[in-house]
Amino acid sequence: MALGERGGWDKSESRYCGVETDFNDDMPHLLSFNLSSGGFDFVVASLGDLGKHSHNLMDPNYRPSLMEKDIGGGSHVLPFAGSDLVLSPSQWSSHVVGKISSWIDLDSEDEILRTDSETTLKQEISWASHLSLQACLLPSPKGASCANYARCVNQILQSLNNMQLWLRIPLVKNDDDTTDFIPSGDSWELWNSFRLLCEHHSQLSVALDVLSSLPSANSLGRWLGEPVRAAIIHTDSFLTNARGYPCLSRRHQKLITGFLNHSIQVVISGKLNHGVPSVSLDSALDHTGTNVESSQRHSLRPYLDYIAYLYQRMDPLPEQERFELSYRDFLQSPLQGHNPLFHIISDEFCTIEFSNYYLSFQPLMDNLEAQTYETFEKDSVKYIQYQRAIGNALVDRVPDEEASSLTTVLMVVGAGRGPLVRASLQAAEETGRKLKIYAVEKNPNAVVTLHSLVRLEGWEKTVTIVSCDMRCWDAPEKADILVSELLGSFGDNELSPECLDGAQRFLKQDGISIPSSYTSFIQPVTASKLHNDVIPCLCAQVSPLEAISFSSKCALALQVKSHKDVVHFETAYVVKVHSVARLAPCEPVFTFTHPNFSTKKSNQRYKKLRFEIPSDTGSAMVHGFAGYFDAMLYKDVHLGIEPSTATPNMFSCCASSSVCFVESYFDTGLQIPAWFAIFFPLRTPVCIRPGSPLEVHFWRCCGSTKVWYEWCVASPNPSPVHNSNGRSYWVGL
Amino acid sequence: MALGERGGWDKSESRYCGVETDFNDDMPHLLSFNLSSGGFDFVVASLGDLGKHSHNLMDPNYRPSLMEKDIGGGSHVLPFAGSDLVLSPSQWSSHVVGKISSWIDLDSEDEILRTDSETTLKQEISWASHLSLQACLLPSPKGASCANYARCVNQILQSLNNMQLWLRIPLVKNDDDTTDFIPSGDSWELWNSFRLLCEHHSQLSVALDVLSSLPSANSLGRWLGEPVRAAIIHTDSFLTNARGYPCLSRRHQKLITGFLNHSIQVVISGKLNHGVPSVSLDSALDHTGTNVESSQRHSLRPYLDYIAYLYQRMDPLPEQERFELSYRDFLQSPLQGHNPLFHIISDEFCTIEFSNYYLSFQPLMDNLEAQTYETFEKDSVKYIQYQRAIGNALVDRVPDEEASSLTTVLMVVGAGRGPLVRASLQAAEETGRKLKIYAVEKNPNAVVTLHSLVRLEGWEKTVTIVSCDMRCWDAPEKADILVSELLGSFGDNELSPECLDGAQRFLKQDGISIPSSYTSFIQPVTASKLHNDVIPCLCAQVSPLEAISFSSKCALALQVKSHKDVVHFETAYVVKVHSVARLAPCEPVFTFTHPNFSTKKSNQRYKKLRFEIPSDTGSAMVHGFAGYFDAMLYKDVHLGIEPSTATPNMFSCCASSSVCFVESYFDTGLQIPAWFAIFFPLRTPVCIRPGSPLEVHFWRCCGSTKVWYEWCVASPNPSPVHNSNGRSYWVGL
Repeated sequence: MALGERGGWDKSESRYCGVETDFNDDMPHLLSFNLSSGGFDFVVASLGDLGKHSHNLMDPNYRPSLMEKDIGGGSHVLPFAGSDLVLSPSQWSSHVVGKISSWIDLDSEDEILRTDSETTLKQEISWASHLSLQACLLPSPKGASCANYARCVNQILQSLNNMQLWLRIPLVKNDDDTTDFIPSGDSWELWNSFRLLCEHHSQLSVALDVLSSLPSANSLGRWLGEPVRAAIIHTDSFLTNARGYPCLSRRHQKLITGFLNHSIQVVISGKLNHGVPSVSLDSALDHTGTNVESSQRHSLRPYLDYIAYLYQRMDPLPEQERFELSYRDFLQSPLQGHNPLFHIISDEFCTIEFSNYYLSFQPLMDNLEAQTYETFEKDSVKYIQYQRAIGNALVDRVPDEEASSLTTVLMVVGAGRGPLVRASLQAAEETGRKLKIYAVEKNPNAVVTLHSLVRLEGWEKTVTIVSCDMRCWDAPEKADILVSELLGSFGDNELSPECLDGAQRFLKQDGISIPSSYTSFIQPVTASKLHNDVIPCLCAQVSPLEAISFSSKCALALQVKSHKDVVHFETAYVVKVHSVARLAPCEPVFTFTHPNFSTKKSNQRYKKLRFEIPSDTGSAMVHGFAGYFDAMLYKDVHLGIEPSTATPNMFSCCASSSVCFVESYFDTGLQIPAWFAIFFPLRTPVCIRPGSPLEVHFWRCCGSTKVWYEWCVASPNPSPVHNSNGRSYWVGL
Repeated sequence: MALGERGGWDKSESRYCGVETDFNDDMPHLLSFNLSSGGFDFVVASLGDLGKHSHNLMDPNYRPSLMEKDIGGGSHVLPFAGSDLVLSPSQWSSHVVGKISSWIDLDSEDEILRTDSETTLKQEISWASHLSLQACLLPSPKGASCANYARCVNQILQSLNNMQLWLRIPLVKNDDDTTDFIPSGDSWELWNSFRLLCEHHSQLSVALDVLSSLPSANSLGRWLGEPVRAAIIHTDSFLTNARGYPCLSRRHQKLITGFLNHSIQVVISGKLNHGVPSVSLDSALDHTGTNVESSQRHSLRPYLDYIAYLYQRMDPLPEQERFELSYRDFLQSPLQGHNPLFHIISDEFCTIEFSNYYLSFQPLMDNLEAQTYETFEKDSVKYIQYQRAIGNALVDRVPDEEASSLTTVLMVVGAGRGPLVRASLQAAEETGRKLKIYAVEKNPNAVVTLHSLVRLEGWEKTVTIVSCDMRCWDAPEKADILVSELLGSFGDNELSPECLDGAQRFLKQDGISIPSSYTSFIQPVTASKLHNDVIPCLCAQVSPLEAISFSSKCALALQVKSHKDVVHFETAYVVKVHSVARLAPCEPVFTFTHPNFSTKKSNQRYKKLRFEIPSDTGSAMVHGFAGYFDAMLYKDVHLGIEPSTATPNMFSCCASSSVCFVESYFDTGLQIPAWFAIFFPLRTPVCIRPGSPLEVHFWRCCGSTKVWYEWCVASPNPSPVHNSNGRSYWVGL
């Protein structure tokens, strides 16, 4: 029945709360008890229960005696006698997560136990798969070594249907072993080994066992970039409040709301540990508003109620953030033929509104559509900043005493449907300066709208519309101020430097460019979803379900997938990053300043960057780099999405400079500016450890017909140089 | 004119010796002086020389002033005025290696120097490429950081013609930094970073500067698995012998003969440092037999003469080894439909004699051809071992006193054209035992030959020929001894366990199987050639030249190449390993014992292995694992190719158990048994460091229709599990 309502817009899976159940051979009763009277949404139940009519699987402690038979080769699945009929198919798939027998130990020194474990694992998953369960919970590896377990799971994953496998991992990190390479004290290392052995398979994910003590915030932060599907909270981890009810410590609360905000489902496990006074049951339920139908109250209900309380207490998302929910962590490919795969991708993208792709668009090679202008113009904060910058520039350029005599020539290059023209006029009005505006726009369709806007607003005397590419325009006079909005998520990635180099021909020597400079930034991130989406890029964006079945049903899916891997992994994507772990603060990459009348100028750039991860993080996986920009529009008026300095509320964001860049996640998840970032993937994710800095090199390369980036990791282990010669991804001049 | 003759069979490039020259603007004279009178085969000359009519490239110290011009984007190649005419095209390509200006420093902090360097590098390589030079020598990176240099070289490699780029690397390793991860003292680290950044490009190779002091033998050994094309020996590194002539230390001699044996060309560099007495010039030349045509003697001639002396002093290769020269380091794909790419590969293989592929063949699914039997039967040592084993088994089974009364029933399963039948009969004659032989063979064509052999030799009374698959044969009586030769290079990889499981039905409970057991072995190797050949597998085996042009001419070659990468990297290859570095001693993997009447037996196997590299090796790259087998035929009579215990002279090899497994290479290169090994590649090579053991897992998996291996690295960094479910490579049952 879900944790509650958050205005109806939260469609994420974290609305649903599960319960881990003991062995019980009456599945219909188990379900009705936990769901109808318990209020849970699903049960995590032993697969011993599921095969209730199969004598072999009745007891979860059962170990197959198959070793006595001639097992030949593959695993034998025992015949099940119609026990799938005890529940309806939709009950199985919606309300049951299968729990694999916890005694299995595929890395035991005991060969018979190992073989028994493998047989049982394969049988139970095969049975769960037959029941179309959505997920199975795999027991945690028993020791530090998990290669045989991973090998077996990897085999299973090669031919699995849509089912997810949740590997149970205790949330443990002993801080005293940060310099030790052996993953003794950090369960993340165990997960990391397992998933590397299984090649980042998209159906392998994590169920974290949340214990009563928690590792450091930075260490917890890593998990937000990992494919965590469930957080299993044992009743032992709850405290007792003054009224005798279970509650969580502040750090636990923060963690759980962080999880809920990242589509991670909560599962309650264990026994009633709190002497909840039965008289006050009704009042305890006040904050959830749910009804108790049954007199036989579920003993874990107080814990569920507490989680529901946390869920409902979370801050509502602002409107723009809600609008963007569906874009969270979805890769958007750069368009405009930068990428040889452009046409394929755009075909597949049909389910997502077309206009929104053009957030990463630039005006050089193609024309935008009306809807796209709509999206751009929505960003009122941006135009307020422009208005402030233009106003300040006007005041600096024209002293008060000359305000009525001097007319400033302002050119808007890339005027679109006129938002910067409007901002300029408003700035002139505000500052009492006289303005002559040239609105240069190459898209003839936008020019139509621009003309009608000018007529409508009566700007004919002030505004001259020029229907021309700024690179070819022969201006009749030189400008005092050149205003443009050509920046991409990574600043210069939409050729603003090249465009403005072309346009500054008609800027006076002492003229002002708005923006006057911009800088790109990157930071290393754990982003397993983005990494996985890069691979089956063509499919994953249509429907995650289709993509999974596509990749798993082909025997040689890997070959199919790898075909275009290099191109996909050498492409930068525009993405609203959400489920990522930011492993270190941003570092600046490239800076451009305008105007630049130097004769030796080049728009090529090269930057070497070093990132240190905090020592209490532990090791972490870098799947790539999140990229941002910050622009100085004029003097101190800036605009940007670099998280520590992002313009507040720009594009509806609510950024704040947070001291602890990871912990901030757990507050509300809304610390990150909402203008989409850019993501530079790494072909092979790199594992970094505290004390071994990550050394990264970025190049901006310019050819005669295109501009592109190359990037590589030089340390701790060198990667290939990505996108050599712009072979995979470029922007056409 | 080459270093001399070694019986005419040595066609390797190491016959040719080069000389590094100073700057000289008269190329025809430079060539005639060094080749005709100097006796060298090629010159390594500044590209400053080459563009002699181009004012910009005259002086190798020239730095372009292009920064003053508008350089736009790409590198501008200046017009060269026909200076390629000073030599004929074949002179350019056969006798000149271009030397890139040594001042270039692409990783300088000085941006102008960096940009100048990039421009010069691209210009000079473009010019060398226009001249169709075979190779260019790139100066050594100036510091520990080489990312920008590598990025630029990588860009060049993407569109280079067939030319090789030799990166100059000093042969240096300070032994005091073995625990330090920073590549301060080990030049191998520098090379390793560079080639990782360039993605193991097949046209990027190494020219080692051999200095007067040498690193440890294990450290030197690493280079044999790397693509070293040239060893540049400075005259300073030579000692002076009693007669005043240059000579090398014993360790240097060993190194140079090791190089010569691995197709690494020697280049002499520097000035005459030895006061060679001019009177004894003629006697000094005695050992080379070359003539001095010119009175103007080349000052470096004594050094060349010494190298020629070392070359000619090398032990001649035995006949079989010479026969196998063309197989060195060529991957041979397993056939028999084990691999989905089978038919493609076999089509491409047409230039290599067909029969030799079948060295890795097994009798289960296909029939061998006559030529293949010929190859097998050539291996007389093998049959001598079989004869000894059968003889010992006969004596153990039948006491002397019953020799004339008891008849031993011996079955040869997989009799082929009869070599084991002959060996059995000879063993019986030698030991005076009576024998009844069933020769079971499923190939009806071999059976024809077998019948004629039996008639010809008059064996009709002793030998019964059974034209039947051993798995189906209904034997009329049970055997005392079961003899087979079903082993592959990796022991059980041709299904010997499964075949013998089937055949032991007709073996008596106390009967003997020959072989009685066999074990596979692996060791980690550096094998850059094998690694590179796995990728463009379909081409590289036809002609290395074709493969190179194929891969470099396509703009998106990487995509094309990666298409089948996974399948290729998950396949084991039969290969005569030669240019590999064996990084640690072999470890045993799987053992099978026959007969095995246990009811619980399974032919599945799982083995975890740990390898430690010697601490003085330094870090090294593991491209995969070389695999071998050793079989106990009967009691102490064994047969095998595991290097430390290999059967002497088996298949013409001359193995010896060497204490230092790497150093042995430098002696004559003939320490390795000649029966081909197996190579298990790693999809991504793994870098290992002393003190961090390499943990490897191998599985032998059995399904209902096939048998396959899976393998992975678990430590220091986990790799994916290779060949999951045998998706890429298997053997059909």
